[in-house]
Amino acid sequence: MSINKQVFRSGPFKDFFAQGVKVGNVLHLAGQVGVDTKGKVGVDIIEQTKLAYVNIQNVLAEFGASMENIVDETMFVTDVSEVMKEAESIFGARAKAYGGIPEVCQTLVQVSALVQADLKIEIKCVAHL
Amino acid sequence: MSINKQVFRSGPFKDFFAQGVKVGNVLHLAGQVGVDTKGKVGVDIIEQTKLAYVNIQNVLAEFGASMENIVDETMFVTDVSEVMKEAESIFGARAKAYGGIPEVCQTLVQVSALVQADLKIEIKCVAHL
Amino acid sequence: MSINKQVFRSGPFKDFFAQGVKVGNVLHLAGQVGVDTKGKVGVDIIEQTKLAYVNIQNVLAEFGASMENIVDETMFVTDVSEVMKEAESIFGARAKAYGGIPEVCQTLVQVSALVQADLKIEIKCVAHL
Repeated sequence: MSINKQVFRSGPFKDFFAQGVKVGNVLHLAGQVGVDTKGKVGVDIIEQTKLAYVNIQNVLAEFGASMENIVDETMFVTDVSEVMKEAESIFGARAKAYGGIPEVCQTLVQVSALVQADLKIEIKCVAHL
Repeated sequence: MSINKQVFRSGPFKDFFAQGVKVGNVLHLAGQVGVDTKGKVGVDIIEQTKLAYVNIQNVLAEFGASMENIVDETMFVTDVSEVMKEAESIFGARAKAYGGIPEVCQTLVQVSALVQADLKIEIKCVAHL
Repeated sequence: MSINKQVFRSGPFKDFFAQGVKVGNVLHLAGQVGVDTKGKVGVDIIEQTKLAYVNIQNVLAEFGASMENIVDETMFVTDVSEVMKEAESIFGARAKAYGGIPEVCQTLVQVSALVQADLKIEIKCVAHL
């Protein structure tokens, strides 16, 4: 059963998965991490969070969408105690990315590792357009 | 691109994320944990599971929905062996919350921690209305 | 609020959750693991990945769907370094299951355990029809 997908690929893993896939009004995004466009990983969880949202915004932009289109967020972190310690900076950066209090659901869990040893946060979003 | 979201906020983290976000017929829920309305954490995984479903039902009710609207469930637990040991009580409580055999998909994984050290289970649901 | 669900149940856990639930054009699948129809677990992560996709295809087939209907994939693995070491075989098997470069988003995280001690990968998919 064929469906009409709009697909955005980018970066070193573009032959393995898409960064965004839209069908109908639903846009799924690949988990985004704190890496800049040159592949440099953010020095700490605060910078990584900022970079992850920049990457999310870049994927959304490819579909004519922005942060207000996000409805659900799953945060996979490698150290929840660090998140709590830096909560003000992390959630401040997140609020700034959203331009105010986010109108999204959130689930936050600590996993034992992400795809690279130096990554501390990965954010998986679902958006509606 | 502006969308028409229905948002429900509640509890101590209401300025950080919503407990439920509905767009069209899809309702995303934040991961729900085993905490009562006064913030008291359930004594064991069985009580926490019961409380998590009470919290899920409360979010659903805000959107005129109930357990039969849930289509997908991800259970993040901190000790899968404990889940297996207490499976009868845990899945019994779950079946009671659903009012019978649940018509939902499920994914269950063991994470290394949840947002508080005493939490043993977090349940993330997607519902359709 | 009653909804029109199409539900597929199968296997030893069929009284606990469904393998697939479809509402409207959206199909949620339960996390699929590397177990064959007789319950035998794949010997390594490569065989488990192949078996997981066979199981995904079997669920999709029940809804008249196939791999091209998948839009989002979350891979929960127990050892991300093993995934990287065997990346060619794992992602080769995945590409073969998809019949080419997958048009899907992906999120890959390392969890501390899956539902059985010998499982190394669980794949949770969302499909659109």
